[in-house]
Amino acid sequence: MSKFAPISGFPEWLPEQRLLEQQCMDTIRKQYELYGFANIETRSVEPTHVLTGNGDDKEIYVLARLHEEADAAKAPPEFGLRFDLTVPTARYVQQFKGQLSFPFKRYQMQKVWRGERPQEGRYREFTQCDIDVIGDGTLPSHYDAEVVRLLAVVVGQLPIPPVTIRVNNRKLLQGFYEGLGIADTNAVLRVVDKLDKIGAPKVAALLQTELNLSADQAAQCLAMAAIKTANTGFVEQVRALGITTPLLEEGLTELTEVLDNAADLNAARLAEGKPPAVSADLAIARGLAYYTGMVCEGQMQGFESSGSVCGGGRYDNLANDAKVKLPGVGVSIGLTRILGLLFAKGVLKPTRKTPTEVLVALNDDASRPQANALANRLRGRGIATDLYHAPKAYGKQIEAASKRGIPYVWFIGEADSHHVKNLLTGEQVAADPATWSPA
Amino acid sequence: MSKFAPISGFPEWLPEQRLLEQQCMDTIRKQYELYGFANIETRSVEPTHVLTGNGDDKEIYVLARLHEEADAAKAPPEFGLRFDLTVPTARYVQQFKGQLSFPFKRYQMQKVWRGERPQEGRYREFTQCDIDVIGDGTLPSHYDAEVVRLLAVVVGQLPIPPVTIRVNNRKLLQGFYEGLGIADTNAVLRVVDKLDKIGAPKVAALLQTELNLSADQAAQCLAMAAIKTANTGFVEQVRALGITTPLLEEGLTELTEVLDNAADLNAARLAEGKPPAVSADLAIARGLAYYTGMVCEGQMQGFESSGSVCGGGRYDNLANDAKVKLPGVGVSIGLTRILGLLFAKGVLKPTRKTPTEVLVALNDDASRPQANALANRLRGRGIATDLYHAPKAYGKQIEAASKRGIPYVWFIGEADSHHVKNLLTGEQVAADPATWSPA
Repeated sequence: MSKFAPISGFPEWLPEQRLLEQQCMDTIRKQYELYGFANIETRSVEPTHVLTGNGDDKEIYVLARLHEEADAAKAPPEFGLRFDLTVPTARYVQQFKGQLSFPFKRYQMQKVWRGERPQEGRYREFTQCDIDVIGDGTLPSHYDAEVVRLLAVVVGQLPIPPVTIRVNNRKLLQGFYEGLGIADTNAVLRVVDKLDKIGAPKVAALLQTELNLSADQAAQCLAMAAIKTANTGFVEQVRALGITTPLLEEGLTELTEVLDNAADLNAARLAEGKPPAVSADLAIARGLAYYTGMVCEGQMQGFESSGSVCGGGRYDNLANDAKVKLPGVGVSIGLTRILGLLFAKGVLKPTRKTPTEVLVALNDDASRPQANALANRLRGRGIATDLYHAPKAYGKQIEAASKRGIPYVWFIGEADSHHVKNLLTGEQVAADPATWSPA
Repeated sequence: MSKFAPISGFPEWLPEQRLLEQQCMDTIRKQYELYGFANIETRSVEPTHVLTGNGDDKEIYVLARLHEEADAAKAPPEFGLRFDLTVPTARYVQQFKGQLSFPFKRYQMQKVWRGERPQEGRYREFTQCDIDVIGDGTLPSHYDAEVVRLLAVVVGQLPIPPVTIRVNNRKLLQGFYEGLGIADTNAVLRVVDKLDKIGAPKVAALLQTELNLSADQAAQCLAMAAIKTANTGFVEQVRALGITTPLLEEGLTELTEVLDNAADLNAARLAEGKPPAVSADLAIARGLAYYTGMVCEGQMQGFESSGSVCGGGRYDNLANDAKVKLPGVGVSIGLTRILGLLFAKGVLKPTRKTPTEVLVALNDDASRPQANALANRLRGRGIATDLYHAPKAYGKQIEAASKRGIPYVWFIGEADSHHVKNLLTGEQVAADPATWSPA
């Protein structure tokens, strides 16, 4: 393999793409903090048994030391790279329980790794931007509503196509399946989760052939999964199916709370002629084994076939052990996937290669200290400034600034006179280093 | 091993410590950008031969897939985790050369991994905050001076004890050793680099016994290494040793440029009665094999025995291949090491567990929607706001805010009246949600 080849599944951005990613992460961070979330980072590695302990089958990368290769091959792999941010956070919360304040609201924006076969929109290394709330003993359901709302607010502020967060509740599905007289409700969940991929007829067939449901039971499951409303209208439609159980009622109440808490966001989107920010979609089940209540995933307009770009749910048992119960709820934004899709399709076009605002033109090598001092002066005033590296013709220096997307070029003239050229307007004006600021 | 035990060498911070780390990283990022550096991130893994190709012997972690353990053990390890940010950047610059603008000024703040035996201030996973400038063909020496100055500015703005950046130049040392008639100048560099650890008498002995230097040659090497000045006074002291070669002259000129460019910073520090920001120290050699000119490392006042907290140098050949010459210069801040030392000694004391500014007190469950709406309103105005999760006594809610370091508690009264209590002053005043702001 060439020394300089890309590695499949490990994306790298150019500086101008990274600048957009940084702007997205700044926006996400700001909103997460506005809603009272504090940041943590967890170590990249976890004991392998922590990663494999929740019944999920993610492909995990384990570590070995290069100079101990022979030994490492014999010993069982001790540490693996995290495949998400939720499992490490559940471990972190248990480990530092005595030093945290509960409900513990944290956000985390870090890379995760999965040893999967790469394909479009699927990576082996990618950044996730998560929020989770973890309670000590109990966690009120209004946090489900809060994290979904915040997710909708955040993705709504990113420079990306509109995202609709489709929400469901596993209690609602499981209560309904129980009401239908189905014993293995998890098996039904897993089959219904394939709706998007294989379609209703095949799901109906699988439910009957593999899980021995009656044609009527299968039809009811599909009728339930077909319910999709951008408000609390789903309640009436569920009731019309004629099934009621305590678990189903609990699910209905919790899902109603989520939709109510996003009503103002949906109204604003409707007024703009855009798809809803949050909608109830009773086909959503989510693959991960640890979810116990609310589940959600977001689709990006124009990229529906590329799968979800954000998602999450409620997990009442992930962080528990014999002594403590630490229920949680959280959502995750798949930022690398979003940007990868938008860069590939040219939907998101970077314009600047650098955050630099001013390029100081260099007259000649002898005046470098003077140009340097001016640059330091502007920096001291909070203006990102660079100095051209060689005393080339002004036209060349302006061209270099333009190529990098730097909006201003600064010229130092005779007798400490100064001029600034705005490359967007072409206008050139006299400027005072003590007072001039970018527009 | 317990599920919740720390993993030696993989530090994790509490939220209040992470908040300080974030503030440090924000400061570093801001200054790096002010000086015209653009951000990149590189993938965590590199082909193993890229990591081992520079003659360094860092302990490298290689990856294997958990479910392919048997195969992986047979195949040579293909990918390893990066042990620094310079080697991946050199590879990145070659790979994307046609899409970058040169001189390429980039900053990078990411984790690196080393499979070393952990000890105080040494980690297996840690964050580095780097700047590098890479030229296409040539790179003027004034960039050496720029990166050292910027490093001094940045560490000077962090909430840490004063750091002195000790600078040297390998050309100066090698030119001097050549002038002494020494053939294997690299071997001498490596021995002199041990001065801090083993002291002058042992270095003198090693130079004579292991490298066959005469007593006079060894004494001259030590006399050179003893030169330390906080200005360009080192030039005269080097000349007084009576050796001159073209390479030595080049080193003197380059080192003078670095010190001249930091003169104003040193003057300001002197005026404050603090140690210099930048000083010439002719004992500095730096371990990494790829440095070719300027080398520097920073010591933190009160933590001199803990080793360097930042450092870097000039590397003219790291990114080259047969066709292209891409000389570079860069420096790195070892942020995890700095914070680890200061947290352990209690020098840096976190005060807030969350960036939240306002905690809205909850009167009763029925008024939660009203409290929630108020919180959303404050958030919309850019004020980080959280809502207490349960309608406990006000005293309890105030105590919870105080424990987290949240400075304000907001009370919603009858007839849409509002009051805010400042927990720092104890003062409570009427407040209008449309106009109130934190002090």
